[in-house]
Amino acid sequence: MRTLIKNGMIVTAVDEFIGDVLIDGEKIVAVGERLDSIADHTIDAQGKYVLPGGVDQHVHYSFEFKGERVRGFETSNAAVAGGTTTVVEFVNQEQGKGMADTIFDMDKNEVARQAMADYSYHAVVCDPVDTTFEEIADLPSKGISTVKLFMAYKGMAFHSDDEALYKALRAAKEAGVTVMVHCENADVIDFLQKKLISEGKTDPYYHAESRPAMVELEATQRVINLAAMAEAPVYIVHVTAEDVMKSIRNAKNEGLPVYGETCVQYLMLDESDLSKPDFEGAKYVLSPALRTKADQNALWKAVGNGWLNAISTDHCGFDWASQKHMGVDDFTNIPNGAPGVENRLGILWTYGVNTGKISRQRFVDLFATTPAKNMGLDHCKGHIGVGMDADIVLYDPNESSIISNENSLHGVDYSTFEGYKQEGKVDKVFLRGKLMVDDEEFIGEKGDGKFIHGEPFALC
Amino acid sequence: MRTLIKNGMIVTAVDEFIGDVLIDGEKIVAVGERLDSIADHTIDAQGKYVLPGGVDQHVHYSFEFKGERVRGFETSNAAVAGGTTTVVEFVNQEQGKGMADTIFDMDKNEVARQAMADYSYHAVVCDPVDTTFEEIADLPSKGISTVKLFMAYKGMAFHSDDEALYKALRAAKEAGVTVMVHCENADVIDFLQKKLISEGKTDPYYHAESRPAMVELEATQRVINLAAMAEAPVYIVHVTAEDVMKSIRNAKNEGLPVYGETCVQYLMLDESDLSKPDFEGAKYVLSPALRTKADQNALWKAVGNGWLNAISTDHCGFDWASQKHMGVDDFTNIPNGAPGVENRLGILWTYGVNTGKISRQRFVDLFATTPAKNMGLDHCKGHIGVGMDADIVLYDPNESSIISNENSLHGVDYSTFEGYKQEGKVDKVFLRGKLMVDDEEFIGEKGDGKFIHGEPFALC
Amino acid sequence: MRTLIKNGMIVTAVDEFIGDVLIDGEKIVAVGERLDSIADHTIDAQGKYVLPGGVDQHVHYSFEFKGERVRGFETSNAAVAGGTTTVVEFVNQEQGKGMADTIFDMDKNEVARQAMADYSYHAVVCDPVDTTFEEIADLPSKGISTVKLFMAYKGMAFHSDDEALYKALRAAKEAGVTVMVHCENADVIDFLQKKLISEGKTDPYYHAESRPAMVELEATQRVINLAAMAEAPVYIVHVTAEDVMKSIRNAKNEGLPVYGETCVQYLMLDESDLSKPDFEGAKYVLSPALRTKADQNALWKAVGNGWLNAISTDHCGFDWASQKHMGVDDFTNIPNGAPGVENRLGILWTYGVNTGKISRQRFVDLFATTPAKNMGLDHCKGHIGVGMDADIVLYDPNESSIISNENSLHGVDYSTFEGYKQEGKVDKVFLRGKLMVDDEEFIGEKGDGKFIHGEPFALC
Amino acid sequence: MRTLIKNGMIVTAVDEFIGDVLIDGEKIVAVGERLDSIADHTIDAQGKYVLPGGVDQHVHYSFEFKGERVRGFETSNAAVAGGTTTVVEFVNQEQGKGMADTIFDMDKNEVARQAMADYSYHAVVCDPVDTTFEEIADLPSKGISTVKLFMAYKGMAFHSDDEALYKALRAAKEAGVTVMVHCENADVIDFLQKKLISEGKTDPYYHAESRPAMVELEATQRVINLAAMAEAPVYIVHVTAEDVMKSIRNAKNEGLPVYGETCVQYLMLDESDLSKPDFEGAKYVLSPALRTKADQNALWKAVGNGWLNAISTDHCGFDWASQKHMGVDDFTNIPNGAPGVENRLGILWTYGVNTGKISRQRFVDLFATTPAKNMGLDHCKGHIGVGMDADIVLYDPNESSIISNENSLHGVDYSTFEGYKQEGKVDKVFLRGKLMVDDEEFIGEKGDGKFIHGEPFALC
Ligand SMILES: [Zn+2]
Ligand SMILES: [Zn+2]
Ligand SMILES: [Zn+2]
Ligand SMILES: [Zn+2]
Ligand SMILES: [Zn+2]
Ligand SMILES: [Zn+2]
Ligand SMILES: [Zn+2]
Ligand SMILES: [Zn+2]
Repeated sequence: MRTLIKNGMIVTAVDEFIGDVLIDGEKIVAVGERLDSIADHTIDAQGKYVLPGGVDQHVHYSFEFKGERVRGFETSNAAVAGGTTTVVEFVNQEQGKGMADTIFDMDKNEVARQAMADYSYHAVVCDPVDTTFEEIADLPSKGISTVKLFMAYKGMAFHSDDEALYKALRAAKEAGVTVMVHCENADVIDFLQKKLISEGKTDPYYHAESRPAMVELEATQRVINLAAMAEAPVYIVHVTAEDVMKSIRNAKNEGLPVYGETCVQYLMLDESDLSKPDFEGAKYVLSPALRTKADQNALWKAVGNGWLNAISTDHCGFDWASQKHMGVDDFTNIPNGAPGVENRLGILWTYGVNTGKISRQRFVDLFATTPAKNMGLDHCKGHIGVGMDADIVLYDPNESSIISNENSLHGVDYSTFEGYKQEGKVDKVFLRGKLMVDDEEFIGEKGDGKFIHGEPFALC
Repeated sequence: MRTLIKNGMIVTAVDEFIGDVLIDGEKIVAVGERLDSIADHTIDAQGKYVLPGGVDQHVHYSFEFKGERVRGFETSNAAVAGGTTTVVEFVNQEQGKGMADTIFDMDKNEVARQAMADYSYHAVVCDPVDTTFEEIADLPSKGISTVKLFMAYKGMAFHSDDEALYKALRAAKEAGVTVMVHCENADVIDFLQKKLISEGKTDPYYHAESRPAMVELEATQRVINLAAMAEAPVYIVHVTAEDVMKSIRNAKNEGLPVYGETCVQYLMLDESDLSKPDFEGAKYVLSPALRTKADQNALWKAVGNGWLNAISTDHCGFDWASQKHMGVDDFTNIPNGAPGVENRLGILWTYGVNTGKISRQRFVDLFATTPAKNMGLDHCKGHIGVGMDADIVLYDPNESSIISNENSLHGVDYSTFEGYKQEGKVDKVFLRGKLMVDDEEFIGEKGDGKFIHGEPFALC
Repeated sequence: MRTLIKNGMIVTAVDEFIGDVLIDGEKIVAVGERLDSIADHTIDAQGKYVLPGGVDQHVHYSFEFKGERVRGFETSNAAVAGGTTTVVEFVNQEQGKGMADTIFDMDKNEVARQAMADYSYHAVVCDPVDTTFEEIADLPSKGISTVKLFMAYKGMAFHSDDEALYKALRAAKEAGVTVMVHCENADVIDFLQKKLISEGKTDPYYHAESRPAMVELEATQRVINLAAMAEAPVYIVHVTAEDVMKSIRNAKNEGLPVYGETCVQYLMLDESDLSKPDFEGAKYVLSPALRTKADQNALWKAVGNGWLNAISTDHCGFDWASQKHMGVDDFTNIPNGAPGVENRLGILWTYGVNTGKISRQRFVDLFATTPAKNMGLDHCKGHIGVGMDADIVLYDPNESSIISNENSLHGVDYSTFEGYKQEGKVDKVFLRGKLMVDDEEFIGEKGDGKFIHGEPFALC
Repeated sequence: MRTLIKNGMIVTAVDEFIGDVLIDGEKIVAVGERLDSIADHTIDAQGKYVLPGGVDQHVHYSFEFKGERVRGFETSNAAVAGGTTTVVEFVNQEQGKGMADTIFDMDKNEVARQAMADYSYHAVVCDPVDTTFEEIADLPSKGISTVKLFMAYKGMAFHSDDEALYKALRAAKEAGVTVMVHCENADVIDFLQKKLISEGKTDPYYHAESRPAMVELEATQRVINLAAMAEAPVYIVHVTAEDVMKSIRNAKNEGLPVYGETCVQYLMLDESDLSKPDFEGAKYVLSPALRTKADQNALWKAVGNGWLNAISTDHCGFDWASQKHMGVDDFTNIPNGAPGVENRLGILWTYGVNTGKISRQRFVDLFATTPAKNMGLDHCKGHIGVGMDADIVLYDPNESSIISNENSLHGVDYSTFEGYKQEGKVDKVFLRGKLMVDDEEFIGEKGDGKFIHGEPFALC
């Protein structure tokens, strides 16, 4: 069956125009004007923007922190309801088990039957033995084109030292796999955490004091140097601070294949959110920590100019009441992370596009097109173009609302952006041609999402 | 009539895919797969690339140097034959006459009936009186969105001093007009020219010694500072040297709206070409002068990374025998400039795309999409997209040839790229839907090209 | 006769220690402990600092602005009373006359019989004909080792364009002469002055708006580039702004012989001084204009770290009542400049040394030792060392006072630093062994100062 | 008794002049002209340079590497014979023992009775327990003002991780102790060493491949960041590469108290020395490794401009035959280090001063004056000035020789600079007034050297 989405303002990373999109089954087969004659069925998009479904290259649906686990793929309808049709999940390697085995066991046991968005996977190195680094060469054949390491979190299984980083970078370079790194100096954080706790500084606010921007800067510069030594590309996740962004830009200017993303929360929130009373600050305990207004401004410029090439959410669904409260007497026990996958489109549209900070073309690029390229998913995702998967969002710019957790599908007891306004609404969402959201209501089913393989050599 | 270009590899600045382009009259009306049913007529493009017609934002069809005039729009078929369907011409203001009057008198008298490519105009400030700067405010209403000034060429009418530059920048900023600047320090060049000639150093090679990269660097940094003071965007034309490119990049990094292009010759040729014997070096006397291999490498990186955003030709058709020889005893009398508009696609494809220096997406961006944006022409030019002018090149990658002036249409007695190979050939070219080149042969007519208005505020 | 200054804290650019300085005639012949036995006469300096007499490399005792002339060498006792025993005067070349002739005619007619401090001269290019640039080669033989050019002041005789700058730099390089440059873009200032006046903005405050820091930055970067092209050293006078300082530092880091000074007023005052009511702001009309507190901080760091190598005064004695009031209806008619030679030591000691911004060693370096080197005067000036001229200041750190014009000798009707405190006082000053100041009272005579020749190749 | 060194060319960091130095006992009591009348005894220095005795802030007389120990203080006559009268020794903390106890036990047992040069100590953190970091606060009271950590040498006792570095920096800042760091990334070196050895690449040359400049750059940038976080000064020892130097300069430009030295061998030798045949390359196995000619040039500029502030030797006396040969089958077993303390003056004079790379003032500064300041020893060392220790070298510029191990006193079986020429010779050396070298012959005795306490807060 051929469905025609008619007369919308179709937006790509390079242009926009009023026209029609023709869908045949799961694919986009034409873009044009007055294509009714070759369609079986039409949907009127007049007055609406026709956007590619978003690609969130950084989400956590399986993360555990001191025994607590985030909400999983059973809440991935929230992504779709928010206009994100593809998510890329970080899967922490189990000790003594291969990275691919960890991933695909989880896929079989949980994800495949729960996912309501399409998805791909990042392998996370947790067991830095020789076989782990050797396995990197095989990941692309299994559809995995990225490996993640954490420089932060001293003492936890997923922490990596320089040896692991360097070995991963060398192996990844050969395989065309992109290494993604969470950059914070674990030793300094550990020292500061112990010092603060020993001084009785246990409130959420001290989370920010325990991991200042300089710990992120140091680690970022270190991994850029390690990547340069390994002659490997490297992708810096969740950049929060002006100086960190500049380190990435400088590396790029020197000809190194160094890239980075930021996240919605670092563009919108700041360290003052951590001092909200009554343990509300715990909602904003995420790592790296929230920074300053000056950093926000620098990050908006960075995404506007392409110095950072994607905006993700680092979505991490821990309940405030039942989980964040673990750290009520000690901020170091608060599970790190906050939910956000549902609000990426709305927030970026309202505070980025409508304020003139970024154009609609640039928005599409940061929201979908370049994340798909980064992940090796651009063979089918991230763009309204002929041959692409029919992942399409109809966005109605004339509606507006206030973000509230009441209306959320993410399964968490709070919203990171509670009370922020959203200009426009997600009216309809198609996932590979299937209508998943209609008039703001999610109508898809568990299992509608499927695994999308990432292709290697995406950033070489 | 609706014409379908079928089964080509359609390339845009953001993607590529095998599909069809549907043309209705002068416009592209659809892009898709298997659109035969809605077409009246089909052209097979299998095995060929379907590219947007090129936009050359920097050509000279009316330039005069010490009384000698370049070949005019009667040779603009060369542009089209080389895949460039739109050119933007610099028109030097006549003394005592308005810029727009100079332009549109020339348009009426010559260009409108001769042009075989679509065209737009840059106004060039030559008479720096108050009324000239006041006129800038009116240019956009006449379809002129750029003003050019020359910092080089001391003593010539088109030379501008800092006062003229600053006044133009201030006026342009208000009007949304982009100031383009030829950056070289005129005083130093003048000193060095006189010194070299007085020492009997009259050969073409000394052209390069008389205007080293530092004169370009100085002027570029100066105009960036002047633009910053005027809070105006500025566009640096024909960047030749690594340090100049870095100045532009640094300014951009500081948040200034500073942009630049390079030209095909600076990517391909170097100062050694100027020392060819028997006055052959005169063919390469153009300004700024050719530089080094190291600069070439830096410029390729710059266009690959977007640090410079367009590649133009600075096409300037002076005959070697009858015009360049004016300077046989004194290189300062050699008319400056060289032809190139016909070879931009072929050279960039061969030495850029096929060597892996730039992707096909990046090629399209530098060749057509961003030049159109820079010039305010993206309302109809630079992109294969719905609603755009049907300016389309079918490029056959399987043919190859050696560039020779014998096969050229540019009306000049030499080719700048004589003997260079070209991988691929321009098979067909459509201009607003009209077939202008078929099987490598130009079949259009004088007057087929029309004036395209540039929209203001393109780079603000 | 051998005079011993006993038991003072002797301060040099490299160390300090309690000891004695032995003077024989005009020279220092020994530094040591308990040298009484070889002295004819002793002066007790216990509890006092023994400093080298200051070298102010930038004063104006002959400057004219729109017909008004500054106070001359008949007021140079103020310098000595303030601890500065050597000044270097800028002499504007007369039209049609050689630079050296202009200088030594003035020397014979006025300076030689009036000077109460030792002095040397800078030649200022005002008549940019060939013979002027040729004369540069002869200046060192006459004891002149510096040439000054002004980039500011469009339309005045002493304004220089790029051609003059470049010619001077080339000639100076050969002769070992240092080119000093007043860096401001004259065209932009001229535009802004006219614009402000036409808008009725005539108050002294608009002086600052008419010449923002960017005009200084542009001109500084330009002359650094011109000097690099001429392969010549260049000295940037009166640096006022952080970015300008950084341009000089960057050039130095790239290996270029680029140097700069700042002045006392730029370390202490800011643009708010220009808005003092009742035309008091006119007292602070000097060029470049006063800047911001942030610039002050940057300049203090610059002198502390050696990024700028001297602190001078740009002393310029125009009366407020009789001369500055020329511009009461038009700030562009206010003679530019302010007096300061008398307060350099006191201010730098109080606000630099005593606040910890600079050490005493660094103070001596900036106040005397390096200025002497810059000027080629270190064969006899700038240092308490064996063989040096016995130019010595005894500074009593235990006294303190408030600066007031009442106590001033500079012959101007106001003090730039009126009301500022001074910690310490100049107790005694020796000029070539002669006691010129005793217990704060000037006891020298006109003609006590003599011409000191500058040696070439000081900064090569 | 008062000794007068007469008529030499006395050189300080700020000036030079022909004059006399008067010594009374251990101290310099006067500097001047014709001081015979107050002297008991005179030494003629006509035609010679009178230099301050050198301060070598980086020597190893107690270092052990895989069980092998360097030549000790019983060879410190070599330092004095080479014009260096003060050395600062690194003492590796014994496990389970305090740093000061380790130092002063060694002092009592060995050094005090063997030293022939004056000396001070650096404490080296090897046992990173809490009490070690707490002890830093007490070091200044014992005359120790510096603490050293090694980032290189994974698996050895003296290797430190980021935690130790950061703790040391925090503690040191409070105590006014300067942290000195050997910067190389241990993990990458370890990886590359194992890889090279596993590939059969066992020759000395592979030492350089196993620790490229990038490992030094990474570690330097890391420790600069750690120091910035601790708000502590940091001193980078033995800088070898241009980029490392620039990192230090950039940090300084940003206002951070970051300093560095280089060593004679990095100015003179390069990686090609490591490929000398017949295991001769092992003589040049020192860490960081020798670099390129380009790095040498950059380092000469750095010391000439003050971007690095001292030149030391990293003197490390391992025998080639009996000790270096441990690594004949595996370069990782070659004891790291080379002797050099005897040749610092001669090499720097010949290849620095006499080639015009540095002035004599700058030489004195790098050789003696600033090292003394860095170490808190300037209360008595590093300068020919009144009140200073009478550590004086008479250097005869008219002699010249070829450096040969035959004439060496350092107790090692090879000379690092074998065959290099030396212009000038050390004619006489005084240590605190005692003549230790006369006519090139060492005439001092074991025990003549004494411990000099370093004062804290030297670089704050
Ligand atoms: Zn993370
Ligand atoms: Zn994450
Ligand atoms: Zn041009
Ligand atoms: Zn041109
Ligand atoms: Zn001035
Ligand atoms: Zn002045
Ligand atoms: Zn070391
Ligand atoms: Zn060492």
